[in-house]
Amino acid sequence: MIVMKLSDIGEFGLIERIREAGARSASRALIGIGDDAAALLVDPGEALLATTDLLLEGVHFDLRTTDLYSLGWKSAAANLSDIAAMGGLPRYCLTALGIPVSFTVEALAEFYRGLRACLGKFGTEVVGGDTCRSRRGFCIGVTLLGETREGRAVTRRGAAPGDRIFVTGTLGGSGAGLELLQKNVRRKTSGGRGKGKAQSAIRKLIERHLRPVPRVNEGIQLAGSGAVSAMIDVSDGLSSDLGHICDESCVGAEVHAGRIPLSRELRAAASLLARPELDLALFGGEDYELLFTVPPEQVARLRSLPVRAAEIGVVTPGAGMVLVDERGRRSSLSPAGYDHFKRSSRRRNPR
Amino acid sequence: MIVMKLSDIGEFGLIERIREAGARSASRALIGIGDDAAALLVDPGEALLATTDLLLEGVHFDLRTTDLYSLGWKSAAANLSDIAAMGGLPRYCLTALGIPVSFTVEALAEFYRGLRACLGKFGTEVVGGDTCRSRRGFCIGVTLLGETREGRAVTRRGAAPGDRIFVTGTLGGSGAGLELLQKNVRRKTSGGRGKGKAQSAIRKLIERHLRPVPRVNEGIQLAGSGAVSAMIDVSDGLSSDLGHICDESCVGAEVHAGRIPLSRELRAAASLLARPELDLALFGGEDYELLFTVPPEQVARLRSLPVRAAEIGVVTPGAGMVLVDERGRRSSLSPAGYDHFKRSSRRRNPR
Repeated sequence: MIVMKLSDIGEFGLIERIREAGARSASRALIGIGDDAAALLVDPGEALLATTDLLLEGVHFDLRTTDLYSLGWKSAAANLSDIAAMGGLPRYCLTALGIPVSFTVEALAEFYRGLRACLGKFGTEVVGGDTCRSRRGFCIGVTLLGETREGRAVTRRGAAPGDRIFVTGTLGGSGAGLELLQKNVRRKTSGGRGKGKAQSAIRKLIERHLRPVPRVNEGIQLAGSGAVSAMIDVSDGLSSDLGHICDESCVGAEVHAGRIPLSRELRAAASLLARPELDLALFGGEDYELLFTVPPEQVARLRSLPVRAAEIGVVTPGAGMVLVDERGRRSSLSPAGYDHFKRSSRRRNPR
Repeated sequence: MIVMKLSDIGEFGLIERIREAGARSASRALIGIGDDAAALLVDPGEALLATTDLLLEGVHFDLRTTDLYSLGWKSAAANLSDIAAMGGLPRYCLTALGIPVSFTVEALAEFYRGLRACLGKFGTEVVGGDTCRSRRGFCIGVTLLGETREGRAVTRRGAAPGDRIFVTGTLGGSGAGLELLQKNVRRKTSGGRGKGKAQSAIRKLIERHLRPVPRVNEGIQLAGSGAVSAMIDVSDGLSSDLGHICDESCVGAEVHAGRIPLSRELRAAASLLARPELDLALFGGEDYELLFTVPPEQVARLRSLPVRAAEIGVVTPGAGMVLVDERGRRSSLSPAGYDHFKRSSRRRNPR
């Protein structure tokens, strides 16, 4: 008997196996395992979106680099972003918390304040949950329920060759913020002369990492327009999440490095961290921007929406992703975001 | 500033605080925090039930006393039971798993086989989830979604003085099964003469503990009849769960010790474990039976249902629970099931 370790098949191999094992029976779900959220038919015309995430101390977060308000905020944001990626309207949240007995009541209240502040920004409320003690760090399970119209939810599977690839906002900021926190650059640059701008950039990137704002309204606009053929949120990193769209849609992609939207702060941080800015943008996670594809004839409609997004490339036939640099040189782009079980992950901030 | 530890306020004090903090804003939920599941209005007439649970290695289960198939089964059963306690029809399941990297793919497949076997018994399917690695043991988050008609879900709040108290099945079996597993009595009694009956009892109780069968069909029958005023599942132990009904309904209860349903196996185990059988039945958890109250004029209707349940007492005005023994002596009955944060919990198998 061959004993297969999880590290042999990786996180996405595992998800595939869970999906296959369940595929034997007929499903009543409109959209099941393998997308940002499941879509469930409730009544003709109405569908429910459901998504759940587990955040573990020592794996997903470190209480030395986040305060509990921010952790609550981010726990909400990560799940809201999954609903946003389906183009849904988030409605209800359930929390399942494993809490170290040493936690104070105030610390936990702070977590809930952050969670509710982020949820409240998008009209979402906590309706239930479970609490228990944990002997091994803080464990956070968040389930989010949202609404959409039947057939309106945008999956990862609809991209076709020729579709343009877009992304909202800027990329790499959250990953850079985490590296800055981990390397404690904030402290090192404090007090120096002429460091005001660097300080402000660092502050913004750390804020971006600790309290990301999910693109809920953009997701609703994009799904409602009917202009979008596939969508995902950038949680594992651009290369990895674009890889998911390619895999699910059975297509490839060509991305123009020069068009990837970078913030001024990211450029400043890349220099402070001595890291290529493109690396941060391609492989950094937790940006919670929306990455989506639009058929060429729908691009005009997209432009008429109140959604700011950069066109970064095009969907190609066949498998594989290619990065085109500013001189037109082509190189292979591998999904190199975080995989929870593979040994060779390049990043340290999983989602 | 007074620093309050979770152990000062306990699990249920904590839930109360979470509820209070959210109560400031108007809720669209039909039933929110504090019951077995939330009820959410989806469309006029239809309501969605949602419940989530976190099961942690070293807190809720021990991989030395459960196989992974049973653990998957029980993870499903615990959540199905919450939907059953609302009288709902379970439909969809989401799993959020934190998996030790040392797990084999086969071990995880075994967990999912058990989970799906239990879900499948009640027509429920896995529609999504999240997987990540865990550095600190196996973490299992399960969310279950179910359906009910608006106004049909049975809460913990409807019990009124004079209502009769009923419970399905028998109590204490799961807790006894756990104690037998922990004390390894199975091994000790093996090979002895005349131990066939004891062996069979032990096997049944361990099975009861490892693979409980939630009372989903009974819950639907009970809720559908309109005869039931309040309902909960027995997950923390009879005394504790009856305490929840009393707290939520602002009533007390009188329970007749002699009427508490005990299985033959439990009586055998009590003698093997040298434990009063009533202790096992009152304070043992994870039986996943349904505990419910019925107004006197509805008892005849209850009797006409295909649901077997024992009448164990009566709801009383005012607070407090009383246990009446077979000679008519009365003693105070305290909720003494598992509390995750209180220091003085009497049991070791939390839910």
